[in-house]
Amino acid sequence: MQAEILSTGDEICQGTFIDTNSAHIAACLNDIGLRVARHQCVGDDIEALTAVFSEIGARADIAIITGGLGPTVDDLSAQAAARAAGVDLVLDRAAENSIKDYFAKFSRTMSPSDIKQAMLPLGAMPILNFWGTAPGFIITLGRCRCYFLPGVPREMEALLGAMVIPDILSFIGKTRNVFIKKELSVFGLPEALVDAKLKGFGDRFPGIKLGMVARFPVITVKMTAQGNDPNHLAEELEKAAEWSARQLDDKVFSFEGRSMEAEVARLLLKQKATLAVAESCTGGLVSHLLTNIAGSSDYFLFSGVTYANQAKQAVLGVSDENLRKFGAVSEQIVREMAEGARRISGAVYGLATSGIAGPSGGSPEKPVGTLCIAVSSQSGTVSRILQSPFKERLSNKQIFAICALDMLRKELLKKAA
Amino acid sequence: MQAEILSTGDEICQGTFIDTNSAHIAACLNDIGLRVARHQCVGDDIEALTAVFSEIGARADIAIITGGLGPTVDDLSAQAAARAAGVDLVLDRAAENSIKDYFAKFSRTMSPSDIKQAMLPLGAMPILNFWGTAPGFIITLGRCRCYFLPGVPREMEALLGAMVIPDILSFIGKTRNVFIKKELSVFGLPEALVDAKLKGFGDRFPGIKLGMVARFPVITVKMTAQGNDPNHLAEELEKAAEWSARQLDDKVFSFEGRSMEAEVARLLLKQKATLAVAESCTGGLVSHLLTNIAGSSDYFLFSGVTYANQAKQAVLGVSDENLRKFGAVSEQIVREMAEGARRISGAVYGLATSGIAGPSGGSPEKPVGTLCIAVSSQSGTVSRILQSPFKERLSNKQIFAICALDMLRKELLKKAA
Repeated sequence: MQAEILSTGDEICQGTFIDTNSAHIAACLNDIGLRVARHQCVGDDIEALTAVFSEIGARADIAIITGGLGPTVDDLSAQAAARAAGVDLVLDRAAENSIKDYFAKFSRTMSPSDIKQAMLPLGAMPILNFWGTAPGFIITLGRCRCYFLPGVPREMEALLGAMVIPDILSFIGKTRNVFIKKELSVFGLPEALVDAKLKGFGDRFPGIKLGMVARFPVITVKMTAQGNDPNHLAEELEKAAEWSARQLDDKVFSFEGRSMEAEVARLLLKQKATLAVAESCTGGLVSHLLTNIAGSSDYFLFSGVTYANQAKQAVLGVSDENLRKFGAVSEQIVREMAEGARRISGAVYGLATSGIAGPSGGSPEKPVGTLCIAVSSQSGTVSRILQSPFKERLSNKQIFAICALDMLRKELLKKAA
Repeated sequence: MQAEILSTGDEICQGTFIDTNSAHIAACLNDIGLRVARHQCVGDDIEALTAVFSEIGARADIAIITGGLGPTVDDLSAQAAARAAGVDLVLDRAAENSIKDYFAKFSRTMSPSDIKQAMLPLGAMPILNFWGTAPGFIITLGRCRCYFLPGVPREMEALLGAMVIPDILSFIGKTRNVFIKKELSVFGLPEALVDAKLKGFGDRFPGIKLGMVARFPVITVKMTAQGNDPNHLAEELEKAAEWSARQLDDKVFSFEGRSMEAEVARLLLKQKATLAVAESCTGGLVSHLLTNIAGSSDYFLFSGVTYANQAKQAVLGVSDENLRKFGAVSEQIVREMAEGARRISGAVYGLATSGIAGPSGGSPEKPVGTLCIAVSSQSGTVSRILQSPFKERLSNKQIFAICALDMLRKELLKKAA
């Protein structure tokens, strides 16, 4: 069974964007026991697209093709697929209605170019898209069952999971097998070390497939078991997860594959506790992550993004004298920030960050990557200084925010114990 | 001139890692005027590698191939290249010495498997690697000049810049074309409408390639001109940009492809003005975007992420009576928030958001997607109510944040006028 992946689009082909879709698709195909023989990417060019569709049709059994389904002149996938199949494009009524419904949902009217998205190669089966305007479709080219999906990651992932994977399973006749997954979220180890620490997994748990996805700075270890006895598979997965967690020291923070902010949210809700944040170097990212979770207003009260020292004093009541004595990036000040955030909001917990995200602002004593965190609660205030190895601003903001949430998480666990 | 990129390795092909090398290589090739016709990725399989090398040899003029040059049994690129060329692997003395030197630098001794890395296809020219152990090499397969580089991004990038790009430039000699780009950043029109409004571009400016990238909710219109008279190309691009901006009403906010936050940052710096923010529904995202920009501490003083009404009162001094009378999502309250942020921080501008991001919290009068924005400055406070068509929390946070920054941008432009 030869499976291939094709991304289309000039932006990917010319390097404007990194192709993240192909890795996601490959991992999903791996999960159902299909290895990927080849990825490809070609630009928005009708000749190149038609040629590569024909090649894939001659070589592969299953192909997932993303991008080029939108309303613009650059969107050429349906046209090229029709050419490769030697058929015409025809208006698909189901696809047309689904686009109309999508527009109606947002009280918008369709422009004529939107109708173009419902023009599918004759004989193609539409994949209706509830998450966007461009429908996908399934068509057989040569010997290959080709799944065409939009390139927008959110839409692609939704359609792949909801419609494509089930269709592939029934196509390859694997519906009787059960697939069970387990995901461990890991923070505090680089990917190579996670890999090294799990050496021997394959020998120990031969029935379980191991995968890894890094969404900086969190790594998700994915385990998939396949078979026909769900109870036995679940038991094996449990053993594998326990063994892996031991190998990875205490760096696994969720056995349900949660994000760090979701895990912190879960613990706060469980304790019916509230949180206020004071952010300097993280610049609002801690608040942004926490408020991405629906229902966060149940526990998240306030964040003071106090970039300027004057704001640290005026909003959080940080001492002018200590600011001058210790500097803004210090355990003393970050403790005062956490306490100030808690005091001003009446929250049960206060969390604060101060540090140097870079690229400039470092000194020999406090280089770029220095991070101070404090957590304040009724039982007192704890603080830490950490050093990130990165010199780059966006990486440091990410790692600083997750470090801060991780410290809060550990304090929440102590309270629960 | 057909250029292609190939990544090798099971980790990339099966989705364990995302391929970031190809985007980097494509951008570097674009910079010297070469468009990339295709990327591919195949796993560590000698048959598959040999087949794809032969295909590339028959089709491309230049190819950059990464990975598979290391010391392990999985590293098969040199062997497959030798097969595709129909030659033997032979020990390359220069490559061997460079590996020895690299080990000597770190006082390590070579293992026998390290010597394998110096076994190159007969006739290949080594690319000596000062940044790691595995040398690359150049070999002609079919009609194609193939550059084999290690897959480690740091080593690949160093060798690409120092040795491969100069070699390509001398290889393509006089055929080199000038390549000029122009990017318009658009906010406030859906992609299909941008496309519809630019209908006729191709007829008007036949020498310019038009592309579009949506990074929700901003759309970047990209124009690329290729030729050998840079002055003429620049003039044509300027005309095309002006025509496009007229077609797109007043929705182009940058002719340099800037992000909304970068454009706001530029205007604030130009006016030597400072900013404080008060965020409710955007939950810290406005601050996060602004502080992603290096040097933002020059103008960004403070953001109060006042999720709870108590925090709106305690931190920003919003009136309790008005909160009860108008509700938190109202022009009255968002004005008080903007004024409060400005007052407490001493900033020149205050920007505030309050709204309903969803999925819950809506009412018939104020449905999910309702957004109130206010901008406060010495000359007074202005406010608006907007309605996003989205029901989904993350999309609404994104669109709310960009709407708020866009309103501030327009106020900054008025001041400059």
